[in-house]
Amino acid sequence: MSFTPGFVPLPVNEEQAALISRIDHTLLSPTAVWEDYQTLCEEALAYHTASVCIPPSRISRVHATWPELTICTVVGFPNGYTTRDIKVSEAKDAMQRGATEIDTVINRNDVKDGNYRAILAELKELRKTTTGAILKVIVETCDLTEDEKIRLCELVTEAGCDYIKTSTGFGSHGAKVEDIELFAKHIGPNVKIKAAGGIHTVDEARSLLQAGADRLGTSSLLGAILAM
Amino acid sequence: MSFTPGFVPLPVNEEQAALISRIDHTLLSPTAVWEDYQTLCEEALAYHTASVCIPPSRISRVHATWPELTICTVVGFPNGYTTRDIKVSEAKDAMQRGATEIDTVINRNDVKDGNYRAILAELKELRKTTTGAILKVIVETCDLTEDEKIRLCELVTEAGCDYIKTSTGFGSHGAKVEDIELFAKHIGPNVKIKAAGGIHTVDEARSLLQAGADRLGTSSLLGAILAM
Repeated sequence: MSFTPGFVPLPVNEEQAALISRIDHTLLSPTAVWEDYQTLCEEALAYHTASVCIPPSRISRVHATWPELTICTVVGFPNGYTTRDIKVSEAKDAMQRGATEIDTVINRNDVKDGNYRAILAELKELRKTTTGAILKVIVETCDLTEDEKIRLCELVTEAGCDYIKTSTGFGSHGAKVEDIELFAKHIGPNVKIKAAGGIHTVDEARSLLQAGADRLGTSSLLGAILAM
Repeated sequence: MSFTPGFVPLPVNEEQAALISRIDHTLLSPTAVWEDYQTLCEEALAYHTASVCIPPSRISRVHATWPELTICTVVGFPNGYTTRDIKVSEAKDAMQRGATEIDTVINRNDVKDGNYRAILAELKELRKTTTGAILKVIVETCDLTEDEKIRLCELVTEAGCDYIKTSTGFGSHGAKVEDIELFAKHIGPNVKIKAAGGIHTVDEARSLLQAGADRLGTSSLLGAILAM
C-alpha cells in the first residue's frame, strides 16, 4: 500500500489505537471532492479505523483503489422515506460495488404514523438482503420520543440487525449519551450501538463508548485523537 | 370527490387561481403523518395546484386514495449521491406507483470533481427512463458557483429534461431571483424553471415568476395566497 506523497502517518499509542478502532471514518458531504475521499481512505488505512463511511456513488472507485478497505455506506439516506423496494435495491447495489456495511435509515413517517409493522417488515427484508454484511439501523433520535426510541430498539433486535445507530448527521442534533444509555437498556444481546453525528472531541467519544457505544460515526474525531 | 368533514374550500379569485396553478404543493418532511398528506392532497384538489410533491414511500397510498391527483416525487433526494443505477430504479419505481413528475437531484460530488460527463450521462439515462413523465433536475444552487450553475443549465438542456429546479429545500438557502434570471439566460427553449425552497410569501412568488420561474415548489405558499 502506498500513500500520496507527503502523507506520513503519525505514531499512535495504545489508547489512541483503541479509540481509532471504533471509528467509522465518515465523509458524507454532498460537495466533497475525490481528493477528500483519498485523504479519508488513506487515513483509514494508515490508522486502522473500523471502516470508511461514504456515499453509494463513491463505493466503486474507492473499492477499486483500496480493495483492502472496509466500506460502509448509507441507504435511504438521510430522510428515510424512499420505498422499501428501493432500499433493498440500494443495499444490493452497494454490496455489489464493494460495501460490506450498510447503514439504513428507518422511515420516520411510518414511526409517526405508528406503523411499526411496516418498519419491522422493511428491516427484516433488509436483513435478508444483507446476509454476510453488517446492517446498521439509523433511527434519527433527534426526531423521536423516548417511547419511539424504545420501540425501535425492540424492532431492530427482532429483525436481527447488527447495530442501532443514533443519527444521520443531517438532523437537528447527533448522538447523546442518554440515548446510548437508553438503547443499551432496550436492545437485545446481539445488537450493538453506533453513535453518530456531532462527535468532535475525545471526551465526547469516551463518554459515548462508556455509555455503551461500540462504533462512532464521525468525520472529525480521528484528527482530535491524533492531537491527544 | 369528497373532502374530510369540516374542510370547506375558500373561494379564490382569478389572480389567486393563477398563482396556485404554479404550485407543486409540497410535503417532504421526514416526520409528516398521514393526516398531513390528507390535508395536502385535499387542498391540492380543491384549489388546483399543479401537483403534490411527496416522498416516494407515500405515492402508492396517495395515488390509491386520490387517483385524479398529479403526483410529483423526488429521486436521489436530497444529497444527490445515490448511484445512477439506483436513481433510475427510483424513477421507475415512482412511476409504477403513480408519480408522473420526477424531481431528481444531481450529484454535486461529480460537479465539484468537474465530472460533467457523469452528470450528463445520468440525466440522459433518467430522461430515457421517464418517457411520458415530467423530469425536473434539482441542482441545489446554494452549493454551486455561477459557472457551475451555467454549466448545469447547458447539461439539463442537452439531456432534454423538462425543468431545472433551484433547490431541495434542505440546503443552506432556497430559490433566489438572481438564480432564476441566470437560469433563464442559459437554458434552452424547451426547458422551464422550478423555483423551490423558502418560498413563503406572495411577493416572493411573484418575483420568482416574473424572473422566469414556471413552477414553485413550496409547502406554505398556498396558505399565503388564500390569505391575500
